[in-house]
Amino acid sequence: MNRIKVEKLLINFKTLEKFKYFKEYGNQELSMLEDLESNMVENDSDSPFYGIYFGDNLVARMSLYTVKAKYDQYFEPPQDYLTLWKLEVLPDYQGKGYGKALVDFAKSYNLPIKTNPRINSHGFWEKMDFQKAHYDMERDLGENPLIWLPEGVEEQENK
Amino acid sequence: MNRIKVEKLLINFKTLEKFKYFKEYGNQELSMLEDLESNMVENDSDSPFYGIYFGDNLVARMSLYTVKAKYDQYFEPPQDYLTLWKLEVLPDYQGKGYGKALVDFAKSYNLPIKTNPRINSHGFWEKMDFQKAHYDMERDLGENPLIWLPEGVEEQENK
Repeated sequence: MNRIKVEKLLINFKTLEKFKYFKEYGNQELSMLEDLESNMVENDSDSPFYGIYFGDNLVARMSLYTVKAKYDQYFEPPQDYLTLWKLEVLPDYQGKGYGKALVDFAKSYNLPIKTNPRINSHGFWEKMDFQKAHYDMERDLGENPLIWLPEGVEEQENK
Repeated sequence: MNRIKVEKLLINFKTLEKFKYFKEYGNQELSMLEDLESNMVENDSDSPFYGIYFGDNLVARMSLYTVKAKYDQYFEPPQDYLTLWKLEVLPDYQGKGYGKALVDFAKSYNLPIKTNPRINSHGFWEKMDFQKAHYDMERDLGENPLIWLPEGVEEQENK
């Protein structure tokens, strides 16, 4: 079996075209497309997306973004943390470890991670050692965030 | 046809039991249940939920929460606004105007509203005069927020 390679995705028309195969295509992708078309961003600029190619096909992706410590409402001690979203593996490529490879890549920064899971994905996140954050209405509203704690990091207590 | 009546829902075991019929049952509801069981909140305390009963059945609900002006990153001038989430009508009761009744109730406060729609609900929100917010990655991350602007309110420009 080939080693799975996670790559940072660059903003260009080819990548944006491949994004259309993913269910969670939304404002974020449309906004990148507009920025590219109007030369607001240069071709091959950094995107917040990481992905896995199988041959020429982008078969899995996630978005990863660093939240600064001063905005940290989840972790103790408060610190920079990663927010992970739009983790998705195309249907034909599921069950092959691509999702895990992306999550492992995120964990390799050794920062706490927060994600807001899709309905029915809790089994996956549990296997990835994510746990439910204590629910705080004013912070979480309709979200059911899951968090991953690297060694030495705890969850913030509810206010 | 009976007039549709929107009611503020109170936290008690009966209501929490009825919440289980809704797909978007999550941490928020579990946390209310725990608070009630451990006497952290009193029976019949206010909840952020509003709903519509048909006979004894809760057939539609939404959550509504006021965000303070100092946290407003969406509207111009910055002001208190409502965030609406978990709008849901039980399958057997859809297409009867219950969803619209809840949204109209939210609009009656005459504050701007932000919501983060479920996939495939855009047709509904368009009919409700909601529009896409300009996407701002650091603010919206994986969300595709929709907003409703009362008279005299505009969207904040992207930074």
